[in-house]
Amino acid sequence: MLEGNGRTELEKLGEFGLIDHIAASVTLQNPSSLIGIGDDAAVIGEGDRRTLVSTDMLVEGVHFDLGYVPLKHLGYKAIVVNLSDICAMNGRPEQVTVSIALSNRFPLEAIEELYSGILMACEKYKVDLVGGDTTSSTSGLVISVTVIGTVAPQDMVLRSGARPTDLICVSGDLGAAYLGLQILEREKRIFVENPSIQPDLTGHDYILERQLKPEARTDIIDMLRQEGVIPTSMIDISDGLSSELMHICKQSNVGCRVYTERIPIDAATGLAAEELHLDVLTCALNGGEDYELLFTASIRAHDRIKDNPAMHIIGHVTESSDGVNLVSGGSLIPLKAQGWRHL
Amino acid sequence: MLEGNGRTELEKLGEFGLIDHIAASVTLQNPSSLIGIGDDAAVIGEGDRRTLVSTDMLVEGVHFDLGYVPLKHLGYKAIVVNLSDICAMNGRPEQVTVSIALSNRFPLEAIEELYSGILMACEKYKVDLVGGDTTSSTSGLVISVTVIGTVAPQDMVLRSGARPTDLICVSGDLGAAYLGLQILEREKRIFVENPSIQPDLTGHDYILERQLKPEARTDIIDMLRQEGVIPTSMIDISDGLSSELMHICKQSNVGCRVYTERIPIDAATGLAAEELHLDVLTCALNGGEDYELLFTASIRAHDRIKDNPAMHIIGHVTESSDGVNLVSGGSLIPLKAQGWRHL
Repeated sequence: MLEGNGRTELEKLGEFGLIDHIAASVTLQNPSSLIGIGDDAAVIGEGDRRTLVSTDMLVEGVHFDLGYVPLKHLGYKAIVVNLSDICAMNGRPEQVTVSIALSNRFPLEAIEELYSGILMACEKYKVDLVGGDTTSSTSGLVISVTVIGTVAPQDMVLRSGARPTDLICVSGDLGAAYLGLQILEREKRIFVENPSIQPDLTGHDYILERQLKPEARTDIIDMLRQEGVIPTSMIDISDGLSSELMHICKQSNVGCRVYTERIPIDAATGLAAEELHLDVLTCALNGGEDYELLFTASIRAHDRIKDNPAMHIIGHVTESSDGVNLVSGGSLIPLKAQGWRHL
Repeated sequence: MLEGNGRTELEKLGEFGLIDHIAASVTLQNPSSLIGIGDDAAVIGEGDRRTLVSTDMLVEGVHFDLGYVPLKHLGYKAIVVNLSDICAMNGRPEQVTVSIALSNRFPLEAIEELYSGILMACEKYKVDLVGGDTTSSTSGLVISVTVIGTVAPQDMVLRSGARPTDLICVSGDLGAAYLGLQILEREKRIFVENPSIQPDLTGHDYILERQLKPEARTDIIDMLRQEGVIPTSMIDISDGLSSELMHICKQSNVGCRVYTERIPIDAATGLAAEELHLDVLTCALNGGEDYELLFTASIRAHDRIKDNPAMHIIGHVTESSDGVNLVSGGSLIPLKAQGWRHL
């Protein structure tokens, strides 16, 4: 670990720096620990079984604002963002555990709202709530979810398998969740300044739903399986397309070219960006929280992917020396990760 | 769930009430979800494999006070209390995930201290840190650990298998962790009143270590296996002997008689209780955090248990109609659970 007795501020490292720093001091001892820190989920197993485990912690005031996030939506989203990590391994989520810390400013009815969202997501995705912990908190609400899933060894997809010439694909559309958040933040500011003004959310149903009630793309995993396509690498888009592209390229030791005009953006997202005077491409690249899947696949899968309206081919994998690039109007723009810097 | 739009205070329900309330609205859908909420760990599996999953959340100001708990010890303890839950299923812990939320008042060096304790426990117990999440917190430190373990189906022990005439056994000794906490709290109060007075912890090494650096009794699981003893029920003592006896009796639908003079209490625990004017038996019954194992076993195992200095036969299981009782000086005292009421 670090030398000396100095004080190193966490901001300097950032979240990914901290994770790398921790991961560097870990060595796996058990033969059943196949993959540890560094992918969307850990992989555990022996013989022909693989168990996937992923965990996420949501903190009030950092990841959500109860000023505009209904508890039921929060519960739903807390589950979905974890299921999405299992999808990113090409796996099937089966169980979750949910731990919550909450202060006694919440009555039982609030906890029931939260759990009704949790259980609604469990039912929709056919996963079981099998355990957890409930405790008090001296301040805000904290939710920690761990998801357990399975995948056959031959179907498992890591971040590290992308190879030059592979197609780069993304599901759904991007940027909507971030713009939904911006609309909610705007209305909150207006309300704080003048509580008599009702929030104006009209026309923003799509982007608000993308922010408040995202879905895990288990349907994409099913479609790929039906088409007989096993991605060469995959990651879910929680921090933004740029950041996820950097992860794939770094862990696969490749470069990439992504064509900006091919990045799928919904019309409603474009309108909201215009209304808020934001660059919609920047929102799609760095906004995050879309929980779509970014994957690479052999060019042999081209015809099986191109006609599926739920998937978009946005570029291709190149040699590592080419770098991580956007292609816009014929010119090459090297990508810088922005990611998600809560720390 | 509840009727009406009233406000039900969480204090009225308590932690176990809240868990029961949540558990009542859960139905398991996946065939691999064998056991859900209600034991020390969830049980997942198919065929001849069983995966055990348990999770715990530790919150600053509720479960620990950084005023006297060193971060390294905190990390160690956060792992151990989870491993203990896998022991309670007669299983072997193999992996952990660790999520932390922390404010930027902590420098990197503090996080390294925390992780050095986490990794020290991982190394000692041969478990692998395979994942987690790091995020910022608007206030205190929150640590959420999930542990994954395995057990052969025929070796798995639940809380519900105790039968009348079974022996009731406990490992190690009880009450020390609670008295260690009382000493730490006392010295903190003195320090707050007069910061020039150095804390006086002399002579309390044993009980302080039991509070600050508890161990998971994987050695007891190994001993039982070597002796060919499979307990009929088991639970780890996190909330106190009384509370755990109530869980075993309720979930096994039995009663019990536990002889107070047989409850193992270390001499150092007795001395500390005297110094603090506390009743040592109450500390042993309700103190909690000892992380010893409470188990029941067939009377046929009597000879294999009685000569093992690490285990103590403290009573026997009776019919449910007999109730949950202590026997003290020949008289029967019905037990009331106190448990651990943070909410």
